[in-house]
Amino acid sequence: MREISSAIKVGAEAYLARQYRTISIIAIITAVLLGVGIRDPTNQWLGVETGVGFLLGALCSNLAGYIAMYISVRSNIRTARGIMTSLDRGLKIAFRGGIVFGLAVVSMSLLGIAALFMIFNRDPRLLVGFGFGASFAALFAQLGGGIYTKAADMSADLVGKVEANIPEDDPRNPAVIADLVGDNVGDIAGRGADLFESITAENIGAMILGLAPAVYVMFGVNGLLFPLLARGFGLIGTFIGTFFVYSRKNEDPFTSLTRGLVVTGVICAAGFYVLTVLLLNGEMYFFYAALVGIVGAVLVAWVTDYYTSYRQRPTLGIATASESGAAPGIATGLAVGMESTALFIIVIGVAILLAFALGTGFTSVGGTMDLTNPAFQKGLYGTAIATMGMLSVTPMILALDGFGPITDNAGGILEMSGAPEESRAISDRLDSVGNTTKALTKGYGVASAALSAFLLFSAFLEVVGLKGVDLFRPAVFTGALIGAMLIFFFSSLAIKAVGSTAAVMILEIRRQFKEIPGIMEGTAKADYSRCIDISTKAALRNMIYPSLLIVISPIVVGVILGPEAAGGLLMVGTMVGVLMALFMNNVGAALDNAKKYIEAGHLGGKGSLVHAATVIGDTLGDPLKDTAGPSLHVVVKLLNTITLAVAPLFLLALLH
Amino acid sequence: MREISSAIKVGAEAYLARQYRTISIIAIITAVLLGVGIRDPTNQWLGVETGVGFLLGALCSNLAGYIAMYISVRSNIRTARGIMTSLDRGLKIAFRGGIVFGLAVVSMSLLGIAALFMIFNRDPRLLVGFGFGASFAALFAQLGGGIYTKAADMSADLVGKVEANIPEDDPRNPAVIADLVGDNVGDIAGRGADLFESITAENIGAMILGLAPAVYVMFGVNGLLFPLLARGFGLIGTFIGTFFVYSRKNEDPFTSLTRGLVVTGVICAAGFYVLTVLLLNGEMYFFYAALVGIVGAVLVAWVTDYYTSYRQRPTLGIATASESGAAPGIATGLAVGMESTALFIIVIGVAILLAFALGTGFTSVGGTMDLTNPAFQKGLYGTAIATMGMLSVTPMILALDGFGPITDNAGGILEMSGAPEESRAISDRLDSVGNTTKALTKGYGVASAALSAFLLFSAFLEVVGLKGVDLFRPAVFTGALIGAMLIFFFSSLAIKAVGSTAAVMILEIRRQFKEIPGIMEGTAKADYSRCIDISTKAALRNMIYPSLLIVISPIVVGVILGPEAAGGLLMVGTMVGVLMALFMNNVGAALDNAKKYIEAGHLGGKGSLVHAATVIGDTLGDPLKDTAGPSLHVVVKLLNTITLAVAPLFLLALLH
Repeated sequence: MREISSAIKVGAEAYLARQYRTISIIAIITAVLLGVGIRDPTNQWLGVETGVGFLLGALCSNLAGYIAMYISVRSNIRTARGIMTSLDRGLKIAFRGGIVFGLAVVSMSLLGIAALFMIFNRDPRLLVGFGFGASFAALFAQLGGGIYTKAADMSADLVGKVEANIPEDDPRNPAVIADLVGDNVGDIAGRGADLFESITAENIGAMILGLAPAVYVMFGVNGLLFPLLARGFGLIGTFIGTFFVYSRKNEDPFTSLTRGLVVTGVICAAGFYVLTVLLLNGEMYFFYAALVGIVGAVLVAWVTDYYTSYRQRPTLGIATASESGAAPGIATGLAVGMESTALFIIVIGVAILLAFALGTGFTSVGGTMDLTNPAFQKGLYGTAIATMGMLSVTPMILALDGFGPITDNAGGILEMSGAPEESRAISDRLDSVGNTTKALTKGYGVASAALSAFLLFSAFLEVVGLKGVDLFRPAVFTGALIGAMLIFFFSSLAIKAVGSTAAVMILEIRRQFKEIPGIMEGTAKADYSRCIDISTKAALRNMIYPSLLIVISPIVVGVILGPEAAGGLLMVGTMVGVLMALFMNNVGAALDNAKKYIEAGHLGGKGSLVHAATVIGDTLGDPLKDTAGPSLHVVVKLLNTITLAVAPLFLLALLH
Repeated sequence: MREISSAIKVGAEAYLARQYRTISIIAIITAVLLGVGIRDPTNQWLGVETGVGFLLGALCSNLAGYIAMYISVRSNIRTARGIMTSLDRGLKIAFRGGIVFGLAVVSMSLLGIAALFMIFNRDPRLLVGFGFGASFAALFAQLGGGIYTKAADMSADLVGKVEANIPEDDPRNPAVIADLVGDNVGDIAGRGADLFESITAENIGAMILGLAPAVYVMFGVNGLLFPLLARGFGLIGTFIGTFFVYSRKNEDPFTSLTRGLVVTGVICAAGFYVLTVLLLNGEMYFFYAALVGIVGAVLVAWVTDYYTSYRQRPTLGIATASESGAAPGIATGLAVGMESTALFIIVIGVAILLAFALGTGFTSVGGTMDLTNPAFQKGLYGTAIATMGMLSVTPMILALDGFGPITDNAGGILEMSGAPEESRAISDRLDSVGNTTKALTKGYGVASAALSAFLLFSAFLEVVGLKGVDLFRPAVFTGALIGAMLIFFFSSLAIKAVGSTAAVMILEIRRQFKEIPGIMEGTAKADYSRCIDISTKAALRNMIYPSLLIVISPIVVGVILGPEAAGGLLMVGTMVGVLMALFMNNVGAALDNAKKYIEAGHLGGKGSLVHAATVIGDTLGDPLKDTAGPSLHVVVKLLNTITLAVAPLFLLALLH
């Protein structure tokens, strides 16, 4: 077990080291451009502060990802050992690994923002660079990790299971360690960077909204501190919630994780009550807005579970349709993914409208509805507080998310080291819970991306001095069309990157099977590290082009078509990004679970034609749910932070 | 041959009769609500005119679809006979069937609009009901036809080819006639209704823009007549272009069809020149705008061909990826479909911006950029003329589109009647050309939907008295999110409708194979008509729910969240609709052609594992490219005409 775990550790560290090296070079160039090269005509925002903030944001994001990976590669073997003792012990160790991860990511963001806020003379607008740096690093982390993990998964399955006919997680497969490394760099470091970015963007956006005259006159600097203290309560709530995660005799592990989340949510709600009384003059409407956010988080998780769990009708429909073949099964899967967006969007839409109305105190707004209207400013602060509410439970959500890959790794370690059957049964049980929590946290990731993006819009409009984004103007309409198209184009590149990285790995695995004598008999060892090395290089190479597309396009559109067109690009890009992310995440999860349903012995079970059909669906869903989908969460936020960071430049636009 | 052709004829007529009956009932209720039940607070637009126009629009659309089907079911047998003589003869007959179809659809629209324009005292704003009726009928026709044709196709393949192991188009298969009927009701009657709606919406939208003060003061009623006369030139151009479609010895049929299209395009361009001189005071900028539209149509066709033809890299990539299995092949297909939106959107975006700039005469616009600005009004008229340019070649495009199903049917008739091998080789050659033209006309359908929708936006804003659609207002943002989501939800319902209709048919086909003795030996005949009857009923039942979703949602949003939110819904819904339509059309076409590439003998050819993988991809692509995708063209326009028709109602909105 030690041997395997240390191979995973070495591989994950090698991957992250190389990834951070790649990011560093691009980040330093960008920081220099931001800080020095690009002149801000209004001399207001761009400058040394933005450049320094950018570097610090990227650094903190990477550090958070690194800590997360550091913890998870050390928790997996302990979890494996714990599982051999009891379910409760395995559950607790895996979950506590996740908690360290969650607390580290969130604290790092809070620390960075609070420090910069003090250094930059309490002007939250100067923190924009930090947010841009965080989303910049997050895109590379999530996309690169996503490409790596799925390419390793696909190629290990394809050559191992299909061609060489050996089972999953078999030590003879040269890609098996790369596959386990992938869980750590994709799901752990990638998702960590993703949510680091969400909470960072939310904090900065909410603080900027606190600067709006109508809000500032009411709460003063307290309105800026509120988001930071709310985040602190989330950390405390998570810490306490941790103690409620334990498995009573034969209790479903999912139930005990839910208990931890509920406790955290209740403590966060209490925290918002206290903060509203202390900082917001007891204006209870804002407390209700926070509740809207917390309830929204629960509903989003519920919708995601309904559409992706095999206890529910949609995924069962995929399994049934697969009886007629892979194509009807996949078609049903695509339909389920598309349908899943409906309830989700209704939840988000109602949350935004309700929080806005609460922010205005349900008074009639009157006058022109734009940023100059005091009621409008208060309404926006209401949506900011709902976003804080939703994001307050983030550390706990991250713990649940980390739980998945840690148990997955533990299962792999047990399998490869030939642990007894009963331990593996326990690890399978934990693993299936991990699959569910991973799907739920992705839904949460999308919702938080949507709400934080909405906060950043107003900051953008304020910088460029716009009152709104009028879609009816041809330049804005075109910018918006381009924003929507970018999401499709990026997704296409992400999916293709998995394919081309996998192609490189497949050749290497085939080569090893052919050239290393005794590998199939188990007398010679496969060269894991070479496999990891090759796929690391390929994944990092393939992530650069799509990332640059997202960084450069909004700048080009803003400079040519003007700031309002850039606003159209980022708003419609955000909407389409949210929809496509949901669609791809849920298609993948539903297809995966339809396969699991068959494997649980239904409709013919493992080895039947139906099973073969669902395996095709599952393989197709992988790059959608673990590469393109989660990367889109980051893309949505990156589009917003980048336009915000370079916004002053757009005032020089050709068509302005 | 006569027997088969008459079975197709009877089936298609039975389907359309039942479909029109279903539509009639819903249409009459809607017309009464429009004309009487709904009160217009401003007493300006809604009323008897809208109700009457609505009914007439639906009637003309259905009539155009019926004529198209009437011609095509009579051309198929003649084409089959022609093919037995020579390639040239088959090509000419099939194409001329298509031409009658194209001329009939376009003339019907021109006739209806011109007549109503005279009756309604030359006020184009009263024509809105006609446009709504046309799009209403088109949605049912395209969606119902699309569900029917793909369900028949899928179930015939699944039970016939896979279970009973008989070849395609085998007369023993009870669903074989239903499959051929499907080509006529889906591709012919459906696409006819789709483009009937595009040109109708374009004419009405352009005429309303001609009413804008800055335009009206320049051109008077000539600015309103221009769109009608431009349409007339398109008819003349197509008529002349027809004579250039003939196949010289061994000439590729595609070349001769292209020649016909080029001649039509040149005549249309000349027509625009003449009309600009005569009606628009020789303001050549508007002529250039028309050229932008014509060139745009060519570029759109080129982009579609690049992404879906198996002579090009993208589709070849799918074939290569399928060597690793169905899942990598389909993943690559999805990536190709997503990527294909990029160039397309750039063409459309540049066309809109360029035409707008030409409309303003490339002068500086100045002042606020909204509908009250004279330069803005002229710019919009420029985009209207570019749309006219793009749509001027519609009759010829429709002829190319009709060409596909007619040759497909002819091939089926030849196959079933045991024609000699060489005739079938010719029919295969024509059939593959038909596949290409079908894909191109779909790209054209999306482009025309996007541009005509853009024209309708301004009409909508004028009615509700808005200057723009500000995405930054929470209600508008939410409306826009809902618009985007509706497209995903509708697509999901359309895909599922194919699956559930196919499930009903599969049961019936299996029953016939089991219960009719001698069916497999060819001694007893399959009960084709029962199969047609069952699938007709199921398809029509399954089309109602998605259609009502699209009709009712914008009204609900407009009434609750106000007119500007409805504007957000329709604009973002249009953008996402265009992207998803492109994505689904091109995924389907590329996967289909990847299979054809393998079947042409590459990478192992028919019967290989690669072939099996591409067959799965092709089957998956069918409901995307022939049901959901084309229905979205119509949805985009319907969202626009419905909000326009009931717009006055939104002034009573709760949150206005």
